[in-house]
Amino acid sequence: MFEINQWIKIKAPATVANMVCGFDILGFAVNNPYDEMEMRRVESSISTSTETAASSIAAAIKIINIDDYNLPTDPEKNVAGVALIALIEAYEEQVQLGHPKATIPIGQLAFEVKINKLIKPGSGVGSSAASSAGAVVGANYLLGDLFSKDDLVRFAMHGEKLASGVKHADNIAPCIFGGVTLVRSIFPLEVIALPSPILHVTIVHPQIEVKTSDARSILKQNIQLKDAIKQWGNIAALVAGLMKEDYDLIGRSLEDVIIEPVRSILIPGFDELKLACKAAGALGGGISGSGPSIFFLSKEQSTALAVEQEMKKLYTRIGLPHHTYVTSINAAGVEVNPS
Amino acid sequence: MFEINQWIKIKAPATVANMVCGFDILGFAVNNPYDEMEMRRVESSISTSTETAASSIAAAIKIINIDDYNLPTDPEKNVAGVALIALIEAYEEQVQLGHPKATIPIGQLAFEVKINKLIKPGSGVGSSAASSAGAVVGANYLLGDLFSKDDLVRFAMHGEKLASGVKHADNIAPCIFGGVTLVRSIFPLEVIALPSPILHVTIVHPQIEVKTSDARSILKQNIQLKDAIKQWGNIAALVAGLMKEDYDLIGRSLEDVIIEPVRSILIPGFDELKLACKAAGALGGGISGSGPSIFFLSKEQSTALAVEQEMKKLYTRIGLPHHTYVTSINAAGVEVNPS
Repeated sequence: MFEINQWIKIKAPATVANMVCGFDILGFAVNNPYDEMEMRRVESSISTSTETAASSIAAAIKIINIDDYNLPTDPEKNVAGVALIALIEAYEEQVQLGHPKATIPIGQLAFEVKINKLIKPGSGVGSSAASSAGAVVGANYLLGDLFSKDDLVRFAMHGEKLASGVKHADNIAPCIFGGVTLVRSIFPLEVIALPSPILHVTIVHPQIEVKTSDARSILKQNIQLKDAIKQWGNIAALVAGLMKEDYDLIGRSLEDVIIEPVRSILIPGFDELKLACKAAGALGGGISGSGPSIFFLSKEQSTALAVEQEMKKLYTRIGLPHHTYVTSINAAGVEVNPS
Repeated sequence: MFEINQWIKIKAPATVANMVCGFDILGFAVNNPYDEMEMRRVESSISTSTETAASSIAAAIKIINIDDYNLPTDPEKNVAGVALIALIEAYEEQVQLGHPKATIPIGQLAFEVKINKLIKPGSGVGSSAASSAGAVVGANYLLGDLFSKDDLVRFAMHGEKLASGVKHADNIAPCIFGGVTLVRSIFPLEVIALPSPILHVTIVHPQIEVKTSDARSILKQNIQLKDAIKQWGNIAALVAGLMKEDYDLIGRSLEDVIIEPVRSILIPGFDELKLACKAAGALGGGISGSGPSIFFLSKEQSTALAVEQEMKKLYTRIGLPHHTYVTSINAAGVEVNPS
């Protein structure tokens, strides 16, 4: 277990969920952008007698934002906070069960977390997931790796519930596992890490707001069987392409006939951008999460840079402020280092 | 190119389409049962002047059934016949294009095919696919491997069109490629051979008739998005499980929430059989093609034999005549040997 009061540094990567045909199941982590966090364990001096369990645990968490986003610092209203509350609750269960690594008495585990959010909230690249995942991976490091990655995903999903109303793992899973992940099932949770060849990623964030709730509400609840068959052919082929390191197959499989035709309406210039990026040599791509960011995958970095130019050209012409990243798939997930 | 009048022997395996969650896209070949065929190239003496192209080509094909199923011998009404017509048409195109391997003058290519059908028609394990696939693989052997496997799948699909009204490749693809195959797309055709660990297969054929047209017409044309998401999570995980040789993952992924709940109504005892086979240790399984055959996959042969006992027990109790096979996934596809 790591010493009390000693700070650790955490890098929590941005993530792309809904990997084209893999709506709700496939996602990946990228090397840039990422959130920077610092975290330490501190002495706790909480009386648990007069409060409810959750809010007494909340008092054991101090969140300090060192960015300008003005996110809530009340742990029960902060995604990193609720993820840590879930982790502390699970820790206390382990104390009661007598787990040999769970040696801090109940009521005495407390954390301080500094968050420097470099992933803009609402951009569609897993900003909230980075905070919750970073916090629980950091806490687990401080506690001597008591919990499994699956456990950590479960804790961090409380953050997603707070942020979007739904416990989903499509950003949390790649953020914690790194690489490309498949969430086969949420209840019970099953995350499968998929091998993947080197893939370069170009992301554009057009500065418009797409509410996750809107992006979800416009989806049709019923779809045609023939479209679903096309989609699952592509998903199966995408998994095979990633595992065979077959770039052409990956490219052919990156088609979404169900979600993208509906959601892309919310993103100005989407269809034109897609044509331009593919003409520039991208394998394929689509909406990142529920948008508004758009990502394209390329085999070569030079292609990813050419794709970036197309993105800039289009949004400059439309007159829409935007930000781009040229990065690659991050294999490590959240990284922790002693200060 | 193989000598004229010399017979070759062909083994064309049975196949399981709609591999549980992989409706219309995933299938595999098995080592037993299989059709036996013999085939040779013969001298042609056809006048092409007064007939339509297709029927003149049909006159170049002689089909001899050496089983008791009384299937049509008119090549235009026989699945192997129409597949061979498609192959001869493509051969004549190659003659016109001057392909160096296409040396037999137009109008002079003719075949004789003996078919000993050991895969019972209508049993749901790709009986018609075996005939069409066996015929075109045999013909290609006799012609010195002019055509690719993809070409052969395209020719053989004419047989499926004749048999079921629809050009589908879900039995043809595994029959020709062997192993487990993924049909990502029919137009244009894309077949992906998937690596797979050793899997033992138990098949039961309850002797009832399930018309493919009935099995298709009862399917709902619209499905719920949430069910589709569950299905494609399983499909992605099944592909990953096969490629990682992870038997537990294969087992967990073999669930179909869309087709099986509808189609299994047509097969007496299905739900009870499924419970019994899984209790006996099978990884999972379901309806083979559009039924009535049912298959289950096992890691060990001993389990596959125990599963067979459960199948026999149930259908004996119900009083339904049935036939079982204990076999394994066939990696080779159609096999050809000189006599």
